[in-house]
Amino acid sequence: MSNTTTHTDTRTTEPTAHRMVREVPHANGPLPVPFRRIHLTNGESLDVEDVSGPVAVDGKLPQLRAAWVARREARGDTNHSQMHYARQGIITEEMTFVAAREGMDPEFVRNEIAIGRAIIPANKRHLELEPTIIGRAFKVKINANIGNSAVSSSIDAEVEKLRWATKWGADTVMDLSTGKDIHLTREHILRNSPVPIGTVPIYQALEKVKGRPELLDIKVFMDTLVEQAEQGVDYFTIHAGVRLAYVPLTAKRVTGIVSRGGSIMAKWCLAHHKENFLYTHFEEICELMKRYDVSFSLGDGLRPGCIADANDAAQFGELRTLGELTDLAWKHDVQVMIEGPGHVPMHKIKENMDEQLKWCKEAPFYTLGPLTTDIAPGYDHITSAIGAAMIGWYGTAMLCYVTPKEHLGLPDAKDVKTGVVTYKIAAHAADLAKGHPRAQERDDALSKARFEFRWKDQFALSLDPETAQAFHDETLPAEGAKTAHFCSMCGPQFCSMKITEDVRAFAKQKGLDAQAALQAGMQEKTAEFVQTGGELYR
Amino acid sequence: MSNTTTHTDTRTTEPTAHRMVREVPHANGPLPVPFRRIHLTNGESLDVEDVSGPVAVDGKLPQLRAAWVARREARGDTNHSQMHYARQGIITEEMTFVAAREGMDPEFVRNEIAIGRAIIPANKRHLELEPTIIGRAFKVKINANIGNSAVSSSIDAEVEKLRWATKWGADTVMDLSTGKDIHLTREHILRNSPVPIGTVPIYQALEKVKGRPELLDIKVFMDTLVEQAEQGVDYFTIHAGVRLAYVPLTAKRVTGIVSRGGSIMAKWCLAHHKENFLYTHFEEICELMKRYDVSFSLGDGLRPGCIADANDAAQFGELRTLGELTDLAWKHDVQVMIEGPGHVPMHKIKENMDEQLKWCKEAPFYTLGPLTTDIAPGYDHITSAIGAAMIGWYGTAMLCYVTPKEHLGLPDAKDVKTGVVTYKIAAHAADLAKGHPRAQERDDALSKARFEFRWKDQFALSLDPETAQAFHDETLPAEGAKTAHFCSMCGPQFCSMKITEDVRAFAKQKGLDAQAALQAGMQEKTAEFVQTGGELYR
Repeated sequence: MSNTTTHTDTRTTEPTAHRMVREVPHANGPLPVPFRRIHLTNGESLDVEDVSGPVAVDGKLPQLRAAWVARREARGDTNHSQMHYARQGIITEEMTFVAAREGMDPEFVRNEIAIGRAIIPANKRHLELEPTIIGRAFKVKINANIGNSAVSSSIDAEVEKLRWATKWGADTVMDLSTGKDIHLTREHILRNSPVPIGTVPIYQALEKVKGRPELLDIKVFMDTLVEQAEQGVDYFTIHAGVRLAYVPLTAKRVTGIVSRGGSIMAKWCLAHHKENFLYTHFEEICELMKRYDVSFSLGDGLRPGCIADANDAAQFGELRTLGELTDLAWKHDVQVMIEGPGHVPMHKIKENMDEQLKWCKEAPFYTLGPLTTDIAPGYDHITSAIGAAMIGWYGTAMLCYVTPKEHLGLPDAKDVKTGVVTYKIAAHAADLAKGHPRAQERDDALSKARFEFRWKDQFALSLDPETAQAFHDETLPAEGAKTAHFCSMCGPQFCSMKITEDVRAFAKQKGLDAQAALQAGMQEKTAEFVQTGGELYR
Repeated sequence: MSNTTTHTDTRTTEPTAHRMVREVPHANGPLPVPFRRIHLTNGESLDVEDVSGPVAVDGKLPQLRAAWVARREARGDTNHSQMHYARQGIITEEMTFVAAREGMDPEFVRNEIAIGRAIIPANKRHLELEPTIIGRAFKVKINANIGNSAVSSSIDAEVEKLRWATKWGADTVMDLSTGKDIHLTREHILRNSPVPIGTVPIYQALEKVKGRPELLDIKVFMDTLVEQAEQGVDYFTIHAGVRLAYVPLTAKRVTGIVSRGGSIMAKWCLAHHKENFLYTHFEEICELMKRYDVSFSLGDGLRPGCIADANDAAQFGELRTLGELTDLAWKHDVQVMIEGPGHVPMHKIKENMDEQLKWCKEAPFYTLGPLTTDIAPGYDHITSAIGAAMIGWYGTAMLCYVTPKEHLGLPDAKDVKTGVVTYKIAAHAADLAKGHPRAQERDDALSKARFEFRWKDQFALSLDPETAQAFHDETLPAEGAKTAHFCSMCGPQFCSMKITEDVRAFAKQKGLDAQAALQAGMQEKTAEFVQTGGELYR
């Protein structure tokens, strides 16, 4: 793999971080893959992912995928799904791109797509997309929800939220708009989005029937799918697993059905006393999905809305149906991920992952949190980050963020940032626990900077450099304090890191530092000390 | 147990919450045990713990324990430790008090104390204390650190932080002051503290030798212990496990020794080429501890300071020594808890708990987080809440909070609140996962209020009602919105909870609601549907 960097390394006394592009080879010609290089004050650097996209020109992003898709259209392809190509042994540009981003082999990526363990949501109409891969063999991804509602928000505000969310690291964005200008809002979002965009088409379909779920039918729904697929939406949340038989199972719940899509479909089922039309027309939907390569995000319409309702019969009944539907989608080579809860106490989280892997045959899992307690509205980014980190470790491929406003109101820019950074933490903690080979590089670089009092490098390497520096400056604002070999917590006399330097000097003086063998010897000695035990007063 | 409430229930259209007192019987006469009753707008109420203490008079709290301790002094007791009484079969006032708080049997409490699985830190000189129990059979507790330093802060500010921390739910508070007025600051804190106060006496001892670790000796240390024990400090962090042989094991670490106490003792060991004097004089320290009933918090001076250093030979070597010291302390009937890390990736957390239980014979574990990644300075309350919730679930008895300022600066009032509320979340999530019998009551009450659109009750039941209401009011400030049957996220047309009401009405109409048996029948039916599978188009 040739690694051509298009920027030269510009070292200064200030750390810098900028988006760079590396060219990677592909059968159809080299591909430009972006990343972010953080230059440190000690001359070292660290490369991290960059999902923030290139600079927009005239309010639109460049169309990275134009030539890729044009070749397929010229050839007359009718199934544009990445899974379809993967199963034919074809490594697409998208696969090579994500492989370079993840530091993985393109053939490995192709195989994961072919067997359904990973997806690359990439509608052929979303030419601005820089593809990303969602699967548990890869880094855990995060999604940020944006979208206006009948009560508040505007188009510009939503595009700004999109830019803001990807600036802080959102790997995908869902547009959950339900208010007016829903089509135009989505258009602006897609033309400005370097990341995959997901939607919940039933919201718009419902608007078309004036908010009355019982008036919905497959025709208005399919029309909506075509409209959104044409715009370039990369994945659709579709609540085809809310079967009529499951609905009464929710009657005894503390909080009933909390998914909007789930409750719309439940109401439809009850109003007609019929099976969910999304379930009965599922293959019709598959036919459309593959023409554009829209991925399914099979919605968990019956997810629990509180601790009391976690892992119940309704939830797991629906999960098994999502497994059936996964098989149907795969029959059409359509990419699938499975949505998951919700509100789940810690000891019931693993069961969710185990059941999902079993029933949905390892299709990627995409969970909302889960929130591990109900008692902290205003802090649900935290109640859910706990569950998100754990389920990410257990194998969930993408985590849908939760902001501090969850249950209380619509998130503003500050909330979106808090939600994204919190979920980057959960995803990264999961990557470390999964043993992702490159995950710990950044922890080590930051910890080394911390130990060596390279304050500016510590800020630059953090998920949110602005906040880290602002917090530091609150107690020690002087520029000199950023190179000082102490900090405000302990003051100059009490610095443990300073004392550790003495320990190292001692160890070195005693010849303990240079030889790794000697350290092993010391460990044996220590074990001896412990095992002989009890000899306190030799 | 007689339950006399001293306040009458005052129901209004506004939820209210106030501190109340219940009298519980004890051999020496009834004891007043405080709790907080949250009255809801639907006429229901929920009782929760209250650690915020009574109102101070003339800047001092009433002395709840004066008569309890006076009886023991009059009797001429020389070992005041709760463990000592417990082992003689005596149920002290402190045990009865904590049993009532926890909803447990006093005899069960006595036994847990007697076998060392729980402690009640309660210096006989801290008469203002409302006792709390720390042990894994009980609710997970949280500690908040306060304390000035050479660089900033003042006495009044520290007392204010104490009140603030207990208002939000800190079960114990550590005064980590290292600056001037260290004695007077501690005096003000103790006379105003209803919760146990812990300190790290080596900090003050070091001040007495002008900040030069090599000048420390057992005499200056013991003098400091006496001074602090006389004031009423309830537990001492003592780094007696930093043995000379372990120090070189830290030389290769990415961040060396990050505990201040640990690095002070390491430096002393190196300067003298001698074994840690806290280790060699440990029983002398025990003699002092039991006279006052100061509990040991055996410090983890070699805890890891970054992900790379987690679970290494130095850390686990020290842990085993802490196990030896636990036996010695128990020989003197002195109460012990064990401090733990630090920075640990999720997959290495359980090993910490398992090793601690094994080597330290189930003495309560008291951990700092652990932080599950190093890359988010400014958000370490979150990186650590993930680890704290998990290790609490695994069995840790108390969690030391981490604020957003960790690694960056001293926490202000806002940071203390954020740290405390975040750790209440972690502790509560752990209580739920452990299956604590009363933990889920509050989740259920809040979720029910949420489902029934009792907005004000939802705020009142939350860990931070002010923030919950403020967030709600940002989008829907009108008073009417607090009784509205919708919220700003979805607007009136899209409310899933509204739709659930229809589901219930349907289920009821079909006779599905009244009979539990029928629900079981539905589940069988569902299972049938799934097992016959694939019949999409019947």
